[in-house]
Amino acid sequence: MIKVGIIGGTGYTGVELLRLLAVHPQAELKVITSRAEAGSKIADLFPNLRGFVELAFSEPDPKLLAGCDVVFSATPNGVAMTHARKLLEAGVRLIDIAADFRLSDPKLWEKWYRMPHACPDLLSEAVYGLPEINRKRIRGARLIANPGCYPTAIQLGFLPLLEQGLIDPGQLIADAKSGVSGAGRKAEVHTLFAEVSDNFKAYAVGGHRHWPEICQELECVSGRPVGLTFVPHLTPMVRGIHATLYCRLTDRGADVQAVFEERYRAEPFVDVLAAGSHPDTRSVRASNVCRIAVHRPQGGDTVVVLSVIDNLVKGAAGQAVQNMNIAFGLEETAGLNAPAVLP
Amino acid sequence: MIKVGIIGGTGYTGVELLRLLAVHPQAELKVITSRAEAGSKIADLFPNLRGFVELAFSEPDPKLLAGCDVVFSATPNGVAMTHARKLLEAGVRLIDIAADFRLSDPKLWEKWYRMPHACPDLLSEAVYGLPEINRKRIRGARLIANPGCYPTAIQLGFLPLLEQGLIDPGQLIADAKSGVSGAGRKAEVHTLFAEVSDNFKAYAVGGHRHWPEICQELECVSGRPVGLTFVPHLTPMVRGIHATLYCRLTDRGADVQAVFEERYRAEPFVDVLAAGSHPDTRSVRASNVCRIAVHRPQGGDTVVVLSVIDNLVKGAAGQAVQNMNIAFGLEETAGLNAPAVLP
Amino acid sequence: MIKVGIIGGTGYTGVELLRLLAVHPQAELKVITSRAEAGSKIADLFPNLRGFVELAFSEPDPKLLAGCDVVFSATPNGVAMTHARKLLEAGVRLIDIAADFRLSDPKLWEKWYRMPHACPDLLSEAVYGLPEINRKRIRGARLIANPGCYPTAIQLGFLPLLEQGLIDPGQLIADAKSGVSGAGRKAEVHTLFAEVSDNFKAYAVGGHRHWPEICQELECVSGRPVGLTFVPHLTPMVRGIHATLYCRLTDRGADVQAVFEERYRAEPFVDVLAAGSHPDTRSVRASNVCRIAVHRPQGGDTVVVLSVIDNLVKGAAGQAVQNMNIAFGLEETAGLNAPAVLP
Amino acid sequence: MIKVGIIGGTGYTGVELLRLLAVHPQAELKVITSRAEAGSKIADLFPNLRGFVELAFSEPDPKLLAGCDVVFSATPNGVAMTHARKLLEAGVRLIDIAADFRLSDPKLWEKWYRMPHACPDLLSEAVYGLPEINRKRIRGARLIANPGCYPTAIQLGFLPLLEQGLIDPGQLIADAKSGVSGAGRKAEVHTLFAEVSDNFKAYAVGGHRHWPEICQELECVSGRPVGLTFVPHLTPMVRGIHATLYCRLTDRGADVQAVFEERYRAEPFVDVLAAGSHPDTRSVRASNVCRIAVHRPQGGDTVVVLSVIDNLVKGAAGQAVQNMNIAFGLEETAGLNAPAVLP
Repeated sequence: MIKVGIIGGTGYTGVELLRLLAVHPQAELKVITSRAEAGSKIADLFPNLRGFVELAFSEPDPKLLAGCDVVFSATPNGVAMTHARKLLEAGVRLIDIAADFRLSDPKLWEKWYRMPHACPDLLSEAVYGLPEINRKRIRGARLIANPGCYPTAIQLGFLPLLEQGLIDPGQLIADAKSGVSGAGRKAEVHTLFAEVSDNFKAYAVGGHRHWPEICQELECVSGRPVGLTFVPHLTPMVRGIHATLYCRLTDRGADVQAVFEERYRAEPFVDVLAAGSHPDTRSVRASNVCRIAVHRPQGGDTVVVLSVIDNLVKGAAGQAVQNMNIAFGLEETAGLNAPAVLP
Repeated sequence: MIKVGIIGGTGYTGVELLRLLAVHPQAELKVITSRAEAGSKIADLFPNLRGFVELAFSEPDPKLLAGCDVVFSATPNGVAMTHARKLLEAGVRLIDIAADFRLSDPKLWEKWYRMPHACPDLLSEAVYGLPEINRKRIRGARLIANPGCYPTAIQLGFLPLLEQGLIDPGQLIADAKSGVSGAGRKAEVHTLFAEVSDNFKAYAVGGHRHWPEICQELECVSGRPVGLTFVPHLTPMVRGIHATLYCRLTDRGADVQAVFEERYRAEPFVDVLAAGSHPDTRSVRASNVCRIAVHRPQGGDTVVVLSVIDNLVKGAAGQAVQNMNIAFGLEETAGLNAPAVLP
Repeated sequence: MIKVGIIGGTGYTGVELLRLLAVHPQAELKVITSRAEAGSKIADLFPNLRGFVELAFSEPDPKLLAGCDVVFSATPNGVAMTHARKLLEAGVRLIDIAADFRLSDPKLWEKWYRMPHACPDLLSEAVYGLPEINRKRIRGARLIANPGCYPTAIQLGFLPLLEQGLIDPGQLIADAKSGVSGAGRKAEVHTLFAEVSDNFKAYAVGGHRHWPEICQELECVSGRPVGLTFVPHLTPMVRGIHATLYCRLTDRGADVQAVFEERYRAEPFVDVLAAGSHPDTRSVRASNVCRIAVHRPQGGDTVVVLSVIDNLVKGAAGQAVQNMNIAFGLEETAGLNAPAVLP
Repeated sequence: MIKVGIIGGTGYTGVELLRLLAVHPQAELKVITSRAEAGSKIADLFPNLRGFVELAFSEPDPKLLAGCDVVFSATPNGVAMTHARKLLEAGVRLIDIAADFRLSDPKLWEKWYRMPHACPDLLSEAVYGLPEINRKRIRGARLIANPGCYPTAIQLGFLPLLEQGLIDPGQLIADAKSGVSGAGRKAEVHTLFAEVSDNFKAYAVGGHRHWPEICQELECVSGRPVGLTFVPHLTPMVRGIHATLYCRLTDRGADVQAVFEERYRAEPFVDVLAAGSHPDTRSVRASNVCRIAVHRPQGGDTVVVLSVIDNLVKGAAGQAVQNMNIAFGLEETAGLNAPAVLP
């Protein structure tokens, strides 16, 4: 059994990670830390875990964490980087579900996250944990930067087309819609039920922190500069991201449906739907799957890709478990093979 | 592996049953019938099952069903009774998730369901499948009447008090609130999103079909006539039932918290919360658990019991699987031990 | 034109009051105060008011408030009482939408609201602003305590039966369900969208602040001690309260439908539905109406009353405007006669 | 008073039209027809109208309709065209809220709406009722084609840029999200609450009926062929459309904010927000306003326009009333000047 520690864990990513680990056949939760909730039983905060998780939150204790095989950081941005060096030195693998190790350029990180980086020297070691691109590098990795939720849905949608050089990387549009759990479990007015329900809006059109992350990774794939317009929206649902992607085909003869099917044929968590389909977010609710459909409206040269994930699973905790599975050489789908909950 | 057939299965109970059976360690789906969808792949109708269920719906075929060990009927009321005799004669166990075998008095059934009963002689054999009361009779039973969703939540809430004779059975009130999936997957105006969302209402105050079912079973438990006022409400959520129960304590010295804890200590799917708690429906979403809290406001002689279930799981498909497990001597929790999905 | 001031006004009651006053034919908004938002334009906080309200929030300034004819206090509990004496001395009428003047016994107030009362001597002057009971006393009143949202829905439902002495006042049950806006526009975890959506729960079963308010007023009506069990619930909708009331008829021959119809025939904002009806909360959304239906299930001696209001209108801002209209001798329905918004 | 008739009126557009007309100072509802509901009181179907509308639905009677000054057709597509000629001959103005007169080319209409057109000769007379473009032609018009909901939001967003020739009309993208009431009040599975709630999906990516309508009108404005990719989505809310529009600036020096502000300065129902804003759909709920914000992310040459309306008001019934007001020379805002309902 792999000994697991969690830093943080009082947010939605935390409870989702606990839900998945609670029934993971090869993982055993050893410690979960929270300054604010130290001493409280986890199942008192999250009653869905009653009978599954007996642990209480504890104060962050380096020794306890050092005794784990892997530590997940499910904290706000800027916390994992303060733990990273010690954990790695103790031989513990670290999977950061926040953003501390996602951008390889510390200057860029500091610009977008507005704080100095605590260990810029570790950035080059960190592996960006999108298995569909980096599976080999994730195997055995010590430090994994779990991708953001929007970046996961958007990259998986553009990936096959950029890899094959079929589209103009300078004119990418990602119109993404997220459920409200993506904003986290913080007391804030703008995510109150009475603010968000029966309502829809865009936000951060001027610049969202996931924009540089997506650009960085798509440029790796494409090998060319990427011009991306990214508009996130808040939609009145709890879970789910729906990314609607627009790009311009440079090779009009390409069979885009075949390109997607071939690219993802062997992927356990990417499901390409039949031509003409429209995936809905509930079809992946509580599951680690990304479902994708690809369209060419009126047979023109604009390609529309529809990509859905559960932001808390494939967009956060589930992908983190997938990364753990790969890093430790387990079955990649271990603990992740329950069907989505519908309706 | 137990060979499983499903009659019906295009509704919400059906898809939930499929979701649970798809990962059940000892069940194998052999056949699922639907006249309307015969020939369609199940996963085309319910894309959450892509990769889990390869079967297509087929025309109802007595021979195929007769080759199963157990058949679930997930149809509208009045269908299971037309299949029952043949299935039993073929040595197949039948678990009816609809209402055909719930009322032991065929006259009463015909009054509330407005059709003649096709096999009234089988009613006496049918076991009412609430394991917390009838576990022993369910073992080995050939014909199981799976309880209704409201009746499950309400009976589990009144049960300990009635068994101990602590309350007046003549003055029971059950104010119950259901998610909209309880109304099924039928095209009807009153369950459209734009009718139900941001809205709340009572319905069937004059008389709901679950009323005689609840009364029948509570009278068995109590041994005395029951006076029950039952008001169901529709609440804008997909899954979940919250029953708020009111009754009058006849023994003012009773320790009602202890009575509940003791009654359900050994039950795998009933969870009594600490005194002063308020269970929420999401704490059981997609799980087979019933969570219960009990209160005596102002220390008076009115007892308030709060009982929550997922109407599609403990209120339908999950309890049906639990009944299958018991009937076949499997581990009672087999296929039912994933934590609830929260948020 | 009546010169209107508002203390507070950054919450949901505030924005609703502004929406109503913006088109009130005889009211003119002169000042609205908020320490936190002083200097901000109202329409920047609440963009639905763009083009309707040009004012900005200002620091609380006794002189400006003293120049008004009426001041509404739309603040948290405990604020209005600190302004009351000065306003009354300046000849300004005060309508407190919070709870400061609702309980006539200062001891009781201090017990439930956990702070000393700033002006207990004014409690006897304050008129409880439920027009259906106190219309005459509201005319010309200087100090009006606007009722709570639950108390409004519940009192209007019990009123006709208690006035006529038809039910046992010692056995009243009020099972009430509220939309989330009733919890206010405060940054709190438990009212986040991702906590409340697709979820249902009871709260404060042990004791809610509206309980003594309801008891006090029902005892006035009944002339006898009242035994009330009150269970509030949170339902995933923005607006609306649905109160389901249970009581025991002492006069079995009573025609309860006629009693309700007669009692409310002349009331502009109480609408008694036909026998057998089920009012839904959306039928009063954004309107000042209370709709009521009354049932006797199975013709027994339990009466079930269904009473719905919009918690922000008849349960708060709308009733406050109604009280202003009455106090100043205006048409009672002025500014309040738009139909509910459905769907 | 203008005598008003309504054909149809049992759907959401109908009830919204009734809500607006009920308090319109210069309109008087004379007749409302519905074959299915003939004889039923309107207020029985839509209880929000109790006390406001006393009429009952009647069988379609040409004589009664001929006695009106204006008739609104709030029916499915294909009905208004069967009434048009007789009404016009009787001197009645017709405002069709459905699509019968929106496309000027009958061949195109027949292709997209899959039925022959009953009066193609009237198409040239019909005025497309978007007042912000066609106000002069609407004055005195006999036959008005009320625009679709998506087309209204999308055209108002592209209009200023196309009129000024600032963008490439060949590369327009409209990613639009609609509340579920846009699908109408028909009994269908795909708009059930349990299908749509907590879910998000695109639909009709291959081709939606509003696409040719938008293209036709934008080509009029632009004077050049338009290349439009239009992707509609269903979002779990009752009312509201949010259109997110993407286009490429050809004049990089343009001050797009100023262009929008100037274009709509005198428009009573188009509100341009300050630079950097994000309108939310609830800010126009139940009101006839379109709110717009314009962005240039990273200062690049992609312009992002955010445009929100209430699909039932500015996208249907409200715009129809606005058209009536203009056609009859009334104050354009008559009956349409209540603030949006928020929250």
